[in-house]
Amino acid sequence: MAAAAVRQGPGTTTKVLVHDVDVHHGWSTRAQLGPYLEQVYRERFLGSGLGAGVRMAGDNGVRGYREDALVDGKPPEGRAVVTGSQELTRAQLLDGCDVGWALLTGGQMYATSCHPDVDYANALTRAFNDFTVDHWLAADERFRFALAINARDPEWSAEEIARLGDHPQVVAVLLPGGALMPYGQRFYRAIHEACVERGLVLAIHYGTEGQGVNPPPTPAGFPSRFAEASLLRASLLQVHFTSFVFEGVFERHPAIKLAMLEGGFSWVPPYLWYLDQTWAEVRVQTPWVKRHPSEYILENVRFGARPLDAPIPDSALRDILEWMQADTTLMFASDYPRWDWTAPATAFGTATDPVRERILAGNATEFFRA
Amino acid sequence: MAAAAVRQGPGTTTKVLVHDVDVHHGWSTRAQLGPYLEQVYRERFLGSGLGAGVRMAGDNGVRGYREDALVDGKPPEGRAVVTGSQELTRAQLLDGCDVGWALLTGGQMYATSCHPDVDYANALTRAFNDFTVDHWLAADERFRFALAINARDPEWSAEEIARLGDHPQVVAVLLPGGALMPYGQRFYRAIHEACVERGLVLAIHYGTEGQGVNPPPTPAGFPSRFAEASLLRASLLQVHFTSFVFEGVFERHPAIKLAMLEGGFSWVPPYLWYLDQTWAEVRVQTPWVKRHPSEYILENVRFGARPLDAPIPDSALRDILEWMQADTTLMFASDYPRWDWTAPATAFGTATDPVRERILAGNATEFFRA
Repeated sequence: MAAAAVRQGPGTTTKVLVHDVDVHHGWSTRAQLGPYLEQVYRERFLGSGLGAGVRMAGDNGVRGYREDALVDGKPPEGRAVVTGSQELTRAQLLDGCDVGWALLTGGQMYATSCHPDVDYANALTRAFNDFTVDHWLAADERFRFALAINARDPEWSAEEIARLGDHPQVVAVLLPGGALMPYGQRFYRAIHEACVERGLVLAIHYGTEGQGVNPPPTPAGFPSRFAEASLLRASLLQVHFTSFVFEGVFERHPAIKLAMLEGGFSWVPPYLWYLDQTWAEVRVQTPWVKRHPSEYILENVRFGARPLDAPIPDSALRDILEWMQADTTLMFASDYPRWDWTAPATAFGTATDPVRERILAGNATEFFRA
Repeated sequence: MAAAAVRQGPGTTTKVLVHDVDVHHGWSTRAQLGPYLEQVYRERFLGSGLGAGVRMAGDNGVRGYREDALVDGKPPEGRAVVTGSQELTRAQLLDGCDVGWALLTGGQMYATSCHPDVDYANALTRAFNDFTVDHWLAADERFRFALAINARDPEWSAEEIARLGDHPQVVAVLLPGGALMPYGQRFYRAIHEACVERGLVLAIHYGTEGQGVNPPPTPAGFPSRFAEASLLRASLLQVHFTSFVFEGVFERHPAIKLAMLEGGFSWVPPYLWYLDQTWAEVRVQTPWVKRHPSEYILENVRFGARPLDAPIPDSALRDILEWMQADTTLMFASDYPRWDWTAPATAFGTATDPVRERILAGNATEFFRA
């Protein structure tokens, strides 16, 4: 439906009244402002010119949890919403929802990547990985693991990937969205290389913006509430995969694979349109970006279908899925054990059969070495 | 076309293979990690847990300008792309493009709102406003003005609005997107009230993120290049109008009017879907937000059609325009004198006649007291 180019409307020469709400004007020389300035500011202006944490978390459900996902009614320690029970996860998710395999993405250790003390953070990260291998991967072969690393220490992270990356159930590496620098930058090269070498997906997951050493969650500082912060999460993912484009990482590592988790997806088509458009306009600045950015994204990046956007009208969902080529780019994600998790049985019920099957399983099968 | 609800596809009970790429797991008690930690870190972790602990500008065109918009081939002083010539603006824009009126939005003074020295910034802002009244508004009655204020000093800004806000050509007040706090927060109440009192539109324009006292442009710090930074500009506007929703400003001031400038528009429908969805899920936290957020936005907020997004396929533009109710919410903006400005003659040529006329003029006429 959306693929057909529908053109109607006026010729472009129709003459109608026009208002322009954005014209950039100002002075030609600083001296023109002199007469309007007091002496003390005039001298300064003429001489020098203009010159130069808080954690957002939901309070819904049972402190963010499905009530029936708690052991003895108590959530695990820490603020993150995670499950501490292999048994419940198996019963409610793996068996309960006929899940083939489930990627374990942690949560309690995301803030290690923004901790002021890098050595302490590395020690915790390593401990968490060992714990996961012993207590989770050994408990059920359907568990897969996105290895925790430390964004602030790429060399150490590469060693950690070498240490555990060959475990058959380790299929990815995880970094949180909040960071000191976008993840495509050269600071992170050791991580890029370690992932490519082992065919591991580099997963980037919403979280840690404005925490620890990280900058605030928006360029206008801290919003007041969870709703506002979570609404801004698309930008947390956009900045990273866009960085991979313009730093040339997809050219340096054509096999690199990125998964964008918990940032929604209905914004993807408009963003990719604008990405190609912007690249076309200023591509002279980055000659090493040889293809349309959307080509890299569609080949090397996948999006987790969580939160489950609800376009209005209903038919818009089909357009969005078509425009983002969801039959190759979108992957189901439950966000278990959150109170507002997505059950696979009800997800994408309005999509066509083949597309739904790709989203629910096919795309992840192809993307992960799972 | 998009309004028809098209439903096809499988029943929701179809049993297919499922993979889940996002499951949050972890420990139940900190002690479970004890065996994996060295003594020094174990004590710390068991006792305290994880604990706490440039401006981008284009180098295209002639330093950002249309070559034929320069006087004697020289741009005005400063980094911002603005015109210093009333004569050229009249010839190339007002007369040259049959523009009814043009909103002057400045540019060189945006950084006053992030200057460390608030008194100095106020003095410059006031001078710039006086200069504009004398040199621009007096030069042609078709010029309208978005008054400069200082986001860091709302009380002073309210006085400045009182001082010049009754000028018949002053129809708006302008703040840049970069800020220490989102603009809906109570810190800015004096500005909200001053705008409402005079029927002035509060315009928020891309810019100053990561400059002066402002936080970095993204929650992952500084991207490397202009393309990356400009791609993130939607989030600069989203954080502000979303703040007006959740702080209850639209309820406190039902007549307040916001214009979002130079952040594009094709992201608006997906953002509004997600906004309503998020509000519905956690509205218990903000009982003073009485309506669907999108209702406030569609009534009280307008978007400048700049940059001019180019959805793919072409037919997607019509869907986007319909979903965002562009016949009331979108306003033409040229961004003159930038090298990549938008000429009204070629804008929205594929929209229907009535919609194109609303975008080019009707919406701005209704919104501004112009």
